[in-house]
Order: sequence, then structure tokens, then C-alpha cells
Amino acid sequence: MARIAIYDTTLRDGSQGEGINFSLQDKLLLTRKLDDMGIDYIEGGYPLSNPKDFEYFQQVRSLELKHAKIVAFGMTRRKNTHPAEDTCIKALMDANTPVVTIVGKTWDMQVREVIGATLEENLLMIGDSIKYLRDHGRRVFYDAEHFFDGYRHNPEYALQTLKAAEAAGAEVVILCDTNGGTMPETIAERVKLVRQHLSCEVGIHCHNDCDLAVANSLIAVAHGVTQVQGTINGIGERCGNVDLVSVVANLSIKYGYEVLQPSSVKRLTELSRYVYEVANMNFRNGQPYVGASAFAHKGGMHTHAVAKNPVSYEHIDPAQVGNERRILVSELSGQSTILAKTTKYAINQDRALMGKILTQVQDLENEGYEFEAAEASFDLLVKKAAGLYQPWFERMAYRVNIEAMSNNGDPITEATVKVRVGEQVQHTVSEGDGPVNALDAALRKALLPLYPKLASMKLVDYKVRVVNGRDGTAARVRVVIESGDADSVWGTVGVSENIIEASWLALVDSIEYKLFKDSGT
Amino acid sequence: MARIAIYDTTLRDGSQGEGINFSLQDKLLLTRKLDDMGIDYIEGGYPLSNPKDFEYFQQVRSLELKHAKIVAFGMTRRKNTHPAEDTCIKALMDANTPVVTIVGKTWDMQVREVIGATLEENLLMIGDSIKYLRDHGRRVFYDAEHFFDGYRHNPEYALQTLKAAEAAGAEVVILCDTNGGTMPETIAERVKLVRQHLSCEVGIHCHNDCDLAVANSLIAVAHGVTQVQGTINGIGERCGNVDLVSVVANLSIKYGYEVLQPSSVKRLTELSRYVYEVANMNFRNGQPYVGASAFAHKGGMHTHAVAKNPVSYEHIDPAQVGNERRILVSELSGQSTILAKTTKYAINQDRALMGKILTQVQDLENEGYEFEAAEASFDLLVKKAAGLYQPWFERMAYRVNIEAMSNNGDPITEATVKVRVGEQVQHTVSEGDGPVNALDAALRKALLPLYPKLASMKLVDYKVRVVNGRDGTAARVRVVIESGDADSVWGTVGVSENIIEASWLALVDSIEYKLFKDSGT
Repeated sequence: MARIAIYDTTLRDGSQGEGINFSLQDKLLLTRKLDDMGIDYIEGGYPLSNPKDFEYFQQVRSLELKHAKIVAFGMTRRKNTHPAEDTCIKALMDANTPVVTIVGKTWDMQVREVIGATLEENLLMIGDSIKYLRDHGRRVFYDAEHFFDGYRHNPEYALQTLKAAEAAGAEVVILCDTNGGTMPETIAERVKLVRQHLSCEVGIHCHNDCDLAVANSLIAVAHGVTQVQGTINGIGERCGNVDLVSVVANLSIKYGYEVLQPSSVKRLTELSRYVYEVANMNFRNGQPYVGASAFAHKGGMHTHAVAKNPVSYEHIDPAQVGNERRILVSELSGQSTILAKTTKYAINQDRALMGKILTQVQDLENEGYEFEAAEASFDLLVKKAAGLYQPWFERMAYRVNIEAMSNNGDPITEATVKVRVGEQVQHTVSEGDGPVNALDAALRKALLPLYPKLASMKLVDYKVRVVNGRDGTAARVRVVIESGDADSVWGTVGVSENIIEASWLALVDSIEYKLFKDSGT
Repeated sequence: MARIAIYDTTLRDGSQGEGINFSLQDKLLLTRKLDDMGIDYIEGGYPLSNPKDFEYFQQVRSLELKHAKIVAFGMTRRKNTHPAEDTCIKALMDANTPVVTIVGKTWDMQVREVIGATLEENLLMIGDSIKYLRDHGRRVFYDAEHFFDGYRHNPEYALQTLKAAEAAGAEVVILCDTNGGTMPETIAERVKLVRQHLSCEVGIHCHNDCDLAVANSLIAVAHGVTQVQGTINGIGERCGNVDLVSVVANLSIKYGYEVLQPSSVKRLTELSRYVYEVANMNFRNGQPYVGASAFAHKGGMHTHAVAKNPVSYEHIDPAQVGNERRILVSELSGQSTILAKTTKYAINQDRALMGKILTQVQDLENEGYEFEAAEASFDLLVKKAAGLYQPWFERMAYRVNIEAMSNNGDPITEATVKVRVGEQVQHTVSEGDGPVNALDAALRKALLPLYPKLASMKLVDYKVRVVNGRDGTAARVRVVIESGDADSVWGTVGVSENIIEASWLALVDSIEYKLFKDSGT
């Protein structure tokens, strides 16, 4: 069947989501991953909007991408300006990407009220901007903002804006349900109609405000759209953009369209979790296709029937999207993930050792560990299992004291640490803003005289989540620490019922990883 | 337009969701709330499956419901049994509900492999079970499990099972997409076809495995279905059942159907959050219609346009579903919720006082507080604002000490508490399994000699969540404590960057609420 182009805007529209804030490094990491997955177009940002997006387009050029085209996003030129003098168009030119997406107004009310232009002027703004970019060698996609609302209010004008874009050389015209309020049958009808008026390709851009973004994207494809825009895990403003994970799975598995690379659909679960980790969001267990619960079976009858014949309660084989069946209570989880992770280690020929590592990782995951964002902790785990580990220091004791005087006063925190390094015992104390800060400070005080290179290491990020062990025991706290030095950044993880202990475990892994790294072992 | 009946199975199918475990009391609380919202049918449980569900049907009779009909759920009789002797049918009779839903097999493969019956026998099992219940005065709904999969494999037999149910007196036949794998256009086609073969009413029961449950339910209604089954917030096994919140909002606002009570749609946000709290789940910020981010605007352009004209970036007025617009950074939140909450207090005539309470609650919500499950803390807040509060004791100090000796040993926790009651100073110490347990024990030691009634109070539940303050500051911990005595159960909340302080605040509220309650003030 036909190929549907997947256009990812996680880095731009996705970053508009509440609580989402990608660093430049995050954006580059995600770009590499999206390319690796076979995404066709990666919208990297809005170069005019902030220095980070500008810098992204400078740095992304040095990535050697296999398949994806990087796209810069921007608006039509302002009124009364020549494209060559327009700051946004200039920024798009400077971004120097093969493809540019221009967003323009479709809704007459918006033209008048938001940009204060005449309807005629807006058509010129669309046409001029696209033509200028085309004349300068860019492929241009045109995002028709608010197309469905605009069409409802003034169908004729809405179509005129699309025709202006096509006439100026837009390769694809994308119909945006910007407010996410359109019902599927309306999407279908409008797509059909637009295709009667345009001869260029048509795309769709949906938001999930009515819980219908996936259905709306699929019905648009059924009516001839060839490009779907969205974000991984559906992150984005308000209720989010359409979730490309669900879109890709449905298009490929349910309808047989060609999407991404042949092997990518099997990696959708990996992709989804990677993006959550980079965005510091919790996985959504019930997420269609890729959630940890998506193929989990609870309750005797289902479990029994699934054991007899999986199709009884599974609409697809979970392996088709890289996910796994989980029979709750007695489950085996993470196997494929871990196998995938260990292949990069030379030791993965040793079957007995591999088995040992798998068992350890599964046990730890049942306790609430996740190694997605804690490769350094995973590294240490492998070293320990393989007998390549030597401790750099030994914990003898720590103590954290939280003390509140008087009513409603903020507590004061002090930590002491006692560690042995070889023959030497170091015993130190420090205050801190909070317990982890105090522990970190005391531990550094103890180790710095012996390992002066630790001075170059700093805490980059500290993330805490309350997790429930999959084995139904008490809630635990998972602490993920990101540390860095001049050369690199690494993540470590600790889990315990006690947040202090969980933080300690992650801190110790971080320091040990740094010491191994510097010693070249 | 026509009325669509809403059938809620949060208490039965919803409780199959991973990590969801409703207590008997939770189920009764939810029943009252669902009835209050105008839900037509409340499926309370599967009386045979466990003692809790059995007990629920005994106790639910004493609730005076305004509108909802309680439904007991069960399977068709076993093969070779008369309904009067079948344990499941007996349990359904004992549940003594006005309506019973019977689930039966539609898929020939399942008949043979899962229940090991002949196709003919299965038809008799369906017919006999329904007829028996009808003869004993029950209204009967028939759930056709796996209808869409069954139809795909053996359309003729699938239709026969539905006809058997209708012939035996089923009032509604519900088509279940049990595995959640069916696409909308197939749902539409099958519903149309079934309605050509049956003259009774038809219902729909969807799961969200393809991210299409809402679209599937809506398209079924468009083709003549008159009952929609689902759960609040879409909780349920695997990827969940269809989210009735989205279904109701779309049916009412987008299509103009009559659903629930006239005023219920405006309370969907309240309903959604109530269910999350009872289920101890985090709200899903991006949830369509009712999520905290559903009408949140970030980014200068949108914010500006929304201020100019809300329809620019909002598909509906958030008040239509009881939600609120939030302009991130400088937002005003919770106003309608708080107003609704304070109406039950006699003091709410005092406009100045109301204003003061609103401001306090908004400030606290910005810090991460939620009062949905902490009515006792809200009560104390109102008392304080109204000058009706008198402290029962004064905190002078507390200290928690977490001490870990040796490598990887579990830390030991000890708490001391110093409080003043009138002229007396109490200074006590206790160990505990963890810091909160230790604090609680020490505080009781201090207060019991002076307030002996505290002996009747116990900790029922303790929930911790990491929350992000809406004002963009550091992550905080929200602790919700549920306490109880012989008469009642109450919830309190505390928020702080320090989990120990947050727990302390919730503990103190709980004790003070108990003391006010016992003193009748």
C-alpha cells in the first residue's frame, strides 16, 4: 500500500506542553533517535523564537542523519514587508534546512483580529513567503492554521488561502485542526473537498482536545492525505498533539500502509519510553500499544484464556510494537529491552552471565528501577555481574537529620558521612538545602582529598518519582540523578522505600561511574 | 435530540485496571457520586467473584439513589446446569438489583476453546440465563463479548447469539469490542448490520487498545446505538475502557444528544477528579476536556490571542465542562471548584471572607495542594479563615533521624516530638518502620495522656505523590492521610519540599480535625 510520510513536531509543538522543557542536548538526542526510527521529517524548532532553537539548527548539521529531513518552522512574512527583510523568513533561511514549514492564517476572523491584516494581504503574505523560500532552494510545506474552524466560518476564503500556498510552490498543504475541536466525519468531508480543489499533496495536523486526534488522523489518511504531523506520545499544548505512536501502529498494523522503516514499528515501545525519559515524564501505563499495561492481564479468567490462546484478549502480538505480554503477579518483564541493551557489551556471548544479568535487571525492575535514563547504573550492574567491579570506597555509615523548631518553620537538614577508602576512614559533615544536597556535600568532602578529579563532576539534574513496585509491595521512590563533567553526561538510579537511601544509591553510582571512567576501566 | 443511556462500569471493569483496588467504602462513595451525576446505570460488580462485591450489593440497597439503577454483572449459566442451580445466576439473584447484565460468548473459537461447549449449547446457555432472570422480574442487558472478533470469524454464528439473547427477553444487546482492536469504520458497518437483524435496543462497549475507543463509541451512536458502556477517566484493564468523560462531553456538546442530567456536563471535571482521588491515581493533565492542562495556554502568541478572543485557541468554553482556562505563569485556578465547595458552609454569605478563602485555596493549590480527598483539611482552613479555630496543641519542635550503618543496610529511623498543650510541655520519642510511622507514634505518645479519645483514631491510608507546583518552582511532595474512628473517615493533606514536613502537616490536621469533631465544634 501507499507510503504515508510521518512528520514529527515533538521538538517544536511538543515542547509547548505544560511542564516540558527540552535542553539543546535533549533536542539533539531526540533528533538522532527520531532519525534512527525512520521518521521522515523532524521539525526541530522555530528559529526566531529563542536562542536555543537557533543554536539547534547550527548544531544539528553535524549529525549524520540516515533518513530524516530536518525542518525549520516559521510564520508567513509580516504585513508590509518583503520576505528578504522579514526577520522570521531570514531566520528560516539562516537555519539552512532542506525543508521549511510556513504557518499561515486560514480563518478570516484571525486574519483581521490577530494579525490585523486584510484578507487580500494575508493571501499575498502566504504566497510571497513560500515563493521566496522556494526561489532560494527550499522545499516548502504549508501549515494551514485553524483550517477546520476557518472553513466553517468562511469556506471560500479558507480555500483561497490553500490555493495561494499551492500556487506559490508549496509541496504539501497541511490542514490543521489547531483547536482540536473537529469531529471525524467533518475531517473526512473537508479533506475530500480540499483534494478536489488542490493538486499538491495534502497533510493533516490534529490536536487531541476531544480525544479523537488518532481517529481524525486515520480518517484523513483514508481520504487521501499523505503526510501526518504529530508528536511522540502525543505531548503538546493543552491535551497534546496526535500521538504518532498510535498513528504509526494503526497505519502499519491495522491498515497495511508503509510507514517509517520496515523494522521501526517493532521499536515503537522503545521510542515511546526514550522520549518520556528525555522529557522527564512518567510513562503512561495505559498508553495504547506501548504502555506497560497495554498487554497486561489481571484476573483469573483473562489470564487463563490468554495462556490458552493469546488472541482471546490481545488484538495483536505485543512483539509487533516491541512491547510484551505481562501476566500480573508472576510476570517476566523487560526481556527484549535488556537483551537489546546488552548486545553492545562484548560479554554478551557468555550465556550464563547474560542469564544472570537478565535476572538481576528483572528483579530490580520489579522493585521499581528503570534503566532507560540510567545507563551508568546499568554499566556498573554489568561490571559487577562480570566480576569487573572493584569498589572505590566503602560506606560505613551515613546519617541525615531533619529538625524543625517552632511552628511551621522550615526544617533544617544536616548529613554526616563515614566512608573507608583503602585503609583510610573519612568522616565528614555538611548542611544542605535539603537532605540530598546535604548528603552530596558531605560525601564530596570525604572523597575529594583522595579523588581530586571528582571536583570536575557536578550534579546536572535530580528527578524523583514515586513508583509502585510491580510485585504489589509498598510504594517506593525512584531517584534519577544526571551528572556531568567536561566530557560527558551520565545518569544513575536508586530505588528504596526511603528517599534518602534511594538518593544515596544514585549518588554513589554516579561517583563510581565517574571514577571508572577516569581510570579508563 | 435522542437520549443516550450512560452505563458506568468503573466499579467492575474499571477495577480490573493495573494498580486499581477499590475498597468497599470506595465503591459506595463512587456509587453515590455517579448517581448524583445522573449516570443511568451503575454496574457495581460481579457478585460471584469476591466477597467484597457480594457485600457491596447488600450495602448499596441502603443508599437512597436519585436516578441510577444498580446493575449486577455475571456470566451465562455453565453448561449442563439449570439456571436455578447455577452458582453465578444464584449470586445474581441474591444481589437483588433491578437490572442484571449477562455476558456471553459470541466467538465460535471462544465457545469451543475457552468454555468447551458446542455452539448450540452456548445458544441455550444465553437464552436460558436471560429467560430465568426475566421470569424472576429482572431487566436484563446482554453483553456480547468479543462481538467484533467473533463476527469476523463466523458472522452467522455471532448474529445467532445476539438473536438468542433478544428472543429470551434481553432489553439491550451490547456489542463489545473486548480486545479493543476494531477500527471505527468496521464498528459502524457492524452496528448498522446488527440493527437490521434485531429489534431491541443496541449498546456499545469499547476498549482503548488502538487509541480509538471514543471515536468507536461515537460512531456507534451515529449508527443507532442507544447505550454506551465505559468508565470514568477510561480506567480499566490494559489500555482501559472508553473514557465516559470524553464520550459524554462529545455527545452533549458536539452532537447535542441528551445525556445524564441537564447540569451534569458542567460537573464533568469535578467527577473526573473525584474518581482519580478515590482510586489514588494522579490526574492526567492532558486529559481531554477535564485535564488541568486542557485549557492551559503557554507561549506568548497563544496567550495573547486567547486574551483577545478565546475561540482562537479553545474549541469550547471550559466552563461547559466545569474546567477553567489557565494562562500559565499568571493564572487563577480552582475558582469554580472552591465556590462549589464553600456553598455548604453557612458562612458563605460573607463575601469578604469568601474572597479570603478563595485566595488562600488558590495559593495552596499553586503550591501543590489538592482538597478533593482532604475535606478535613479544607474544613480547618475555613475554620481558621472564619476565626473559629483554636489550636489544640502547639508544635515546639520535631526531629527525624535516618541512620544507615554499613554498606546497603536499611536505615533506622527515630523521631522525637516536643509539643505544648496549655501550660504543659510534652517531649516524646519513638522509632518506626519509616519516618512518618515514627513521627506519628511520637506525636500520639505526647498527646494521648491529655486527649485520651485519640486512642480511637487510626491511620487508614497514607498516599504520597510528587507534584510540581503550578508556579514553576521546585518539585514538592503531597501527602494525603486518611484517618478513621468508629464513626467516620476523613482525609487531610500536607505539601512541602520535604516529605517529613508534608507528612507532619497532614498528621496534625488529622488529629485536630478529630479533636474538633469530638468536641462538637
